[in-house]
Amino acid sequence: MCELLGMSANVPTDINFSFTGLIQRGGRTGPHKDGWGVAFYEGRGLRLFQDSKPSAESEVARLVTRYPIKSEIVIGHIRQANVGDVSLVNTHPFVRELWGQNWCFAHNGQLAGFAPPRGHYRPVGETDSERAFCDLLNRIRTAYPEPVAADLLLPILIEACAEYRTRGVFNCLLSDGDWLFSFCSTKLVEITRRSPFGPARLKDTDLTVDFQAETTPDDVVTVLATEPLTHDETWESHVAGGWSLWRLGECVARGQLGH
Amino acid sequence: MCELLGMSANVPTDINFSFTGLIQRGGRTGPHKDGWGVAFYEGRGLRLFQDSKPSAESEVARLVTRYPIKSEIVIGHIRQANVGDVSLVNTHPFVRELWGQNWCFAHNGQLAGFAPPRGHYRPVGETDSERAFCDLLNRIRTAYPEPVAADLLLPILIEACAEYRTRGVFNCLLSDGDWLFSFCSTKLVEITRRSPFGPARLKDTDLTVDFQAETTPDDVVTVLATEPLTHDETWESHVAGGWSLWRLGECVARGQLGH
Repeated sequence: MCELLGMSANVPTDINFSFTGLIQRGGRTGPHKDGWGVAFYEGRGLRLFQDSKPSAESEVARLVTRYPIKSEIVIGHIRQANVGDVSLVNTHPFVRELWGQNWCFAHNGQLAGFAPPRGHYRPVGETDSERAFCDLLNRIRTAYPEPVAADLLLPILIEACAEYRTRGVFNCLLSDGDWLFSFCSTKLVEITRRSPFGPARLKDTDLTVDFQAETTPDDVVTVLATEPLTHDETWESHVAGGWSLWRLGECVARGQLGH
Repeated sequence: MCELLGMSANVPTDINFSFTGLIQRGGRTGPHKDGWGVAFYEGRGLRLFQDSKPSAESEVARLVTRYPIKSEIVIGHIRQANVGDVSLVNTHPFVRELWGQNWCFAHNGQLAGFAPPRGHYRPVGETDSERAFCDLLNRIRTAYPEPVAADLLLPILIEACAEYRTRGVFNCLLSDGDWLFSFCSTKLVEITRRSPFGPARLKDTDLTVDFQAETTPDDVVTVLATEPLTHDETWESHVAGGWSLWRLGECVARGQLGH
């Protein structure tokens, strides 16, 4: 299995604190030693750092923790390989261009015998995750060759996630640079930090941050993760079959399969 | 204008030496201060480092020079903005997936009033360069929805380059991870290093490398660049309208428009 990290914020925010916690699980406090990746949206641009080395030992990961990239949407992933070799090509997050936007996707789980129809978007690597991402984009492009708003996409995303879920574990994060979508098949937690901000202590390494000192009263920052990353904060668990859509740190839609 | 850097090698080779020279031109020995990027193929995977900061001052660029990433194909670019803001989204090289392969492109020059038809691939940023890349891929995908060999692609690439060239300056590098294609409209030089290897000294910074010590007798490494990067080596200039195709360090095809 793998671990996911997502962020949606209403101001460009650095994810260093959460990322520093996450990467400890890549070979140190966690078994996810088969690579890691993190994608930062910068306007319409996407900055992607990846490595097939364990994140706890990765030079690139160390750079990212030192380098305060500020972003409104971040998707990160640490990998414990199940399908596909340990190689760059099988490392999340995956990126494709649709409608002149960078779409980014990361998946935690495993889909058994998943062979979606060939379409416009094709996997470069061997993972079931990248196949699912390409299938998602193919469904969207087929339904909407031209850009549409998120509310029109949601039914397609939710239906696809419902299908994928029948084939195994499918927790995912998806973004087009404007919104961040999540689906929980087994495990996903969230926290929204807003004024008054307090301190927080990472679970995976000895690091505490005082968000009060790092933020302004108007900041709203939501973090999604497979497991809570901090002590002394309350992370809410998503239900199985639960999906959510975030923009600028706020949840703009959420629901649950069959509800 | 901008500067290009390309490498094709028959063994995974690090480009640190050439890259170290190139990035000096990004704000120090050259005016190309509007961002830089370098893409390394690792098998079918592509590792992309980019920054909209001047390369001579970029932390990410320093990491890349320290980090001996070995690759058989590399495409690098330093930018002096003409069309499009200085931002990540306008930073070369550009990447798209076609036929389940990562395609990578960088351009030196400027195309006037270039508005190709909308197709499957659409630019995310504002540069004429990304528009040209998308147009190239749209032409290829339209002609060949399924993968074909490079010799079938060449007529499409050459015809497109001939058209682009009529609109301005169009020096470019393109790769699908298997081969490296170049087109020269005004300025491109090449050097192929093979046994017996000698020493070389960078023009842009005080750095000398003894390739003898870094290579085996069977290594063949070709570097393409806008301007020669070293002293005491002979770089061959490409003619205006000249194109070339490289695989594993060797030129497998070359020609000139109208010849």
